[in-house]
Amino acid sequence: MPTGDHMTPEEFREAGHAMIDWIAEYMQQVEEFPVASRVEPGEVRAMLPAHPPEQGEPWSEIAADIDRVVMPGITHWQSPNFFGYFSSNSSGPSILGDLLSTGLGVQGMLWATSPACTELETHVLDWLVDILGLPAAFASDSKGGGVIQDTASSATLAAILTARERATDWLSNAEGAKGPLVAYTSSQAHSSIEKSAMVAGIGKNNVRMIDVDSAFAMRPQALAEAITADRAAGRTPFFVCASLGTTSSHAFDPLASIAEITQREGLWLHTDAAEAGAMLACPEFRHLAEGMEAADSFCFNPHKHLLTNFDCDAYFVRDREALIRTMSVLPEYLKNEQTMAGKVIDYRDWHVPLGRRFRALKLWFVIRHYGVEGLRSYLREHVRMAQLFASWVDQDPDFEIFAPHPLTLICFRHRSDDATNRELMQRLNDSGELFLTHTVLNDQFILRMAIGGAKTTESHVQRAWEKIRAMATELST
Amino acid sequence: MPTGDHMTPEEFREAGHAMIDWIAEYMQQVEEFPVASRVEPGEVRAMLPAHPPEQGEPWSEIAADIDRVVMPGITHWQSPNFFGYFSSNSSGPSILGDLLSTGLGVQGMLWATSPACTELETHVLDWLVDILGLPAAFASDSKGGGVIQDTASSATLAAILTARERATDWLSNAEGAKGPLVAYTSSQAHSSIEKSAMVAGIGKNNVRMIDVDSAFAMRPQALAEAITADRAAGRTPFFVCASLGTTSSHAFDPLASIAEITQREGLWLHTDAAEAGAMLACPEFRHLAEGMEAADSFCFNPHKHLLTNFDCDAYFVRDREALIRTMSVLPEYLKNEQTMAGKVIDYRDWHVPLGRRFRALKLWFVIRHYGVEGLRSYLREHVRMAQLFASWVDQDPDFEIFAPHPLTLICFRHRSDDATNRELMQRLNDSGELFLTHTVLNDQFILRMAIGGAKTTESHVQRAWEKIRAMATELST
Repeated sequence: MPTGDHMTPEEFREAGHAMIDWIAEYMQQVEEFPVASRVEPGEVRAMLPAHPPEQGEPWSEIAADIDRVVMPGITHWQSPNFFGYFSSNSSGPSILGDLLSTGLGVQGMLWATSPACTELETHVLDWLVDILGLPAAFASDSKGGGVIQDTASSATLAAILTARERATDWLSNAEGAKGPLVAYTSSQAHSSIEKSAMVAGIGKNNVRMIDVDSAFAMRPQALAEAITADRAAGRTPFFVCASLGTTSSHAFDPLASIAEITQREGLWLHTDAAEAGAMLACPEFRHLAEGMEAADSFCFNPHKHLLTNFDCDAYFVRDREALIRTMSVLPEYLKNEQTMAGKVIDYRDWHVPLGRRFRALKLWFVIRHYGVEGLRSYLREHVRMAQLFASWVDQDPDFEIFAPHPLTLICFRHRSDDATNRELMQRLNDSGELFLTHTVLNDQFILRMAIGGAKTTESHVQRAWEKIRAMATELST
Repeated sequence: MPTGDHMTPEEFREAGHAMIDWIAEYMQQVEEFPVASRVEPGEVRAMLPAHPPEQGEPWSEIAADIDRVVMPGITHWQSPNFFGYFSSNSSGPSILGDLLSTGLGVQGMLWATSPACTELETHVLDWLVDILGLPAAFASDSKGGGVIQDTASSATLAAILTARERATDWLSNAEGAKGPLVAYTSSQAHSSIEKSAMVAGIGKNNVRMIDVDSAFAMRPQALAEAITADRAAGRTPFFVCASLGTTSSHAFDPLASIAEITQREGLWLHTDAAEAGAMLACPEFRHLAEGMEAADSFCFNPHKHLLTNFDCDAYFVRDREALIRTMSVLPEYLKNEQTMAGKVIDYRDWHVPLGRRFRALKLWFVIRHYGVEGLRSYLREHVRMAQLFASWVDQDPDFEIFAPHPLTLICFRHRSDDATNRELMQRLNDSGELFLTHTVLNDQFILRMAIGGAKTTESHVQRAWEKIRAMATELST
C-alpha cells in the first residue's frame, strides 16, 4: 500500500478482523490488568514522536502501538473490579451497534439526511418510555418525546435553556424576566447542574444549593422557603432540578413533594436520574421516582447502567415544541421538503450540536439482544450484589455505612479518621486489584463502592471486600 | 445463548467479523445505492414492533434487520456521488480507531480516568498545529492548547462562553457588563453562531449579522461601524466570529482586517473554519487564513474533510486558563491526586459535557496511516476536481457560477429562474445518481456542488456534470 492511499477493502477486512479479535481478547483479559493506570504524567506523550509522520506508516506499526503506547495509559473501566465513579457499561451488541454507526458514516442532523437515523431513535426512545414505565407524556405520540444526547450534562443544559426561554419570552436572554432568574437544586446535586446554569448565563450567584436531610435528599420545605425569599427580593425562580440517585451518595430527592412546589409556583421541573434511571426498568424500584408524572423533563444514561457504550444519554420532555423553539435556527442551506412540510422530526433542533451520530443503533441492538427481561435480571443482580456488600460492611464492627443505599452504590468508611480512609483508598487503588473513588459527606471522607460493571460477579465483590478488610487491618496495626 | 446472557467472546468474534465484512462490502457497493434515501416519513418506524421484546432475540435476526429496516432509510453520505452539504469523511483507519475507542470503553473526563486518552489527544492536537501551520500560541507548550469537541457548534459555544466570562468578571451572567453584551458575525455565517449566542444567553437581539461584500465575505468597515454604534448606545461589544469558508458559499472573511478591529476594540476573535480549515495543511492555501496570529480561538472539523469519522472537531485556544476557568466546577467526587497537584490536563474542563470518548485514537490512526504528505495529496485532489468542475460550468453558456470558489465548493445555477433550478435539483436527487443541496445568494436559488467524498474521483464529478447538463436540457425543452 503506497503512502497516502486508502485501505483497500481487503486490507480493511484483515485489520478489522484483527481489531475485533483484539477487543474479544481484551474483554477476556481485562481482569488481569491493574485497574487504574500506573503511568506518571507525561509518560504516554514521551513515547510519541514530536512531529507527525510525513509519509504514511504500515498498519502493522500503527496497530503495534496500541499495546506499546495506549495500554499502559488505560484505566480499565470495563474491568469487573472497577468500582469507581459510576460504571460506564459496555456489551458486545453495543460495540457492534457503534461499529455499524461508524461504518455507515451517516450524519443525522435532519430527517432527510438519513431517515432511519431519526426514526429508529424516536422508536427506541419510545421503547424506553415503555421499559422504564415513564409518563406517557414523554412518548412521541403525545406532545413530548425523547432524544439521545451525549451526556446528562447536555440534557440538563437543554432543560435549563428551555426553562429559561419559557420564562423570558423566548428572547434567549434574561431581558424578558422580572429581576434575575434563579435555579434550584440540592447541595448534593451533580456539578453539571451548576455548570449548565453557568453556560445558560444564569449566573453562579443565582443557583441555590438547597439543604438536604439526613439521607442527603433535598428538603422540600427548604426549597419552598428559598423560592419565597427570592420572589420577595424581586428575583424570578424558574427551574428546579431534582436528583434521583446523586453521584455522591445515591440520594433520591422526594420528587412528589418537590413537584407539588414546582406546579404551585409554575417552575420547570427537571429530573436527573443519570445513573439510577435505568433501574426503573424494574417495577419494584419505581417508587423511588414517584412524582415523575409532574416532571417537565427527565434524563438517564443508558451508557451508565444499561450495557450501551458511552456516549448515550436519553432525554425526555413533556413539551417538544418548547425544546424545538429554544434550539431551532433554520438557515436556507438546511431547508428541505420534509422539514418545511413539518411532517418529520429534525433532531438537530433538540440539542446544541448540529451534526449527530447514529447512536440509536447500539441501544436498539442492546434491547433486542438482552430483551427487557434480560435487562431486568442484569440490573437486579447488581442490586443484589450491592446489598450483599452492604450487609458485610454492616456486620463488620470496624466499618460503617454512611448513607442509605437502595440500589447499587454503597457509601462506607473505616471507623477511624479521614487520613486513614484516604490512605486505605490509595493503597487499594495502588494494588491494582480494584478501583474505588471517594466523596465527602458531613465533612467526612467516605469511600464509594459503585457496583455496575457488565462483567462484575459476586466473586469480584467478595474479593474486593476481603481486600478492603485486609488492607484496613494492615493499616491499623 | 440463553436470553439475557452476554455475548461470549466467540460469539462476539463471529458477529464482529461479520460486521467488519458487511462494512467492507458496503464501502465497495455504496455507489450502487440511490444516494438519498427514498423512504417516506414513517416508513422505517412502520417496520418496527410497537413494543420492545421481553425475551432476547438471536443475533442473526438482529443483524438481518440492518438490511431490511436500516438500509432503505439511509442517505449515503459515504457515496462518491454525495455532493450535498459538506462531506462527512470516513476511512478505514478512522473506523478502526473508533472501534478501538468503543472496545476499550474508557471515559476520559479526567487525566486519571485514562491518562492515554488525555495525553494522546493533547499530542495529536499539537500535531495538527504543526500540520496546519497554526500559530504556536495554540500548542500545548504555550499558554494555549487544543481539545476535541463533538462539533463546531460546541467549539463556537465554548468560544462565546469564554468571551462572555472574560467580559463580565467571571460571574456566568451579564451582571458584570455595562449594558447588554453584543456579538458579531457575518450575515453569511453558520447558524451555529447565532445558536451559540442564544444558548449563552446573549439574546437574539444582540447578535449582529454584519453585511458582506460581493464575494459574500464580511465587510470590516461595516463591522467597525456596528461596534461604534453599539458602544454609543451603551451596549458592550465582546465577541466576533470570522468565517473561513462559509457553509453557504465558501466565503472567506478578511481575517487580518477583522483582527485589527478586534485587537483595537479588545474583543474576542473566534475563527470558524469548520470545513475549509483542513486545507491549511497545504501551504498554498494558507493565505486564506492570513491574520490567524491574532485569533483567540480557532476550530475546524477533521470529520468533514480529513478522513476522520464524525464526531471530531478540533478546537484551539490561545489562553487555556480562560477556557478552564469558564467551564470548571470541581466537586469532591472528581478530586484526585493528579488534578489537585495541577500537573495534568482534565479535558472535562474544556467543554460542556463531563464524560468523553477516546476520540484521539481515530485521528492518530488517520494521520499515521496517510502521513501528512498523503493528506495533502488527498486534499489537493479535491481542490483540483472542484476547479475542473468550475471550469466546465464556466464554459457552458446555460450555467453560471455564482460565488468565488477558491477550494472545493462550487455555487452555480442554470441561467433560468428559481423554480427551474429547484426542479433541477429535485430531479437530480430523485434520480439517485447524485445528491446536491442548495442555498440562497442575493435572493436567488443556487445549487451547491461540494466535493469532499473520500472515494470521489474525477469520473464521479464528470458523470455528475453530464447528468446535471442532461437534466437541465430535458427541463428546458
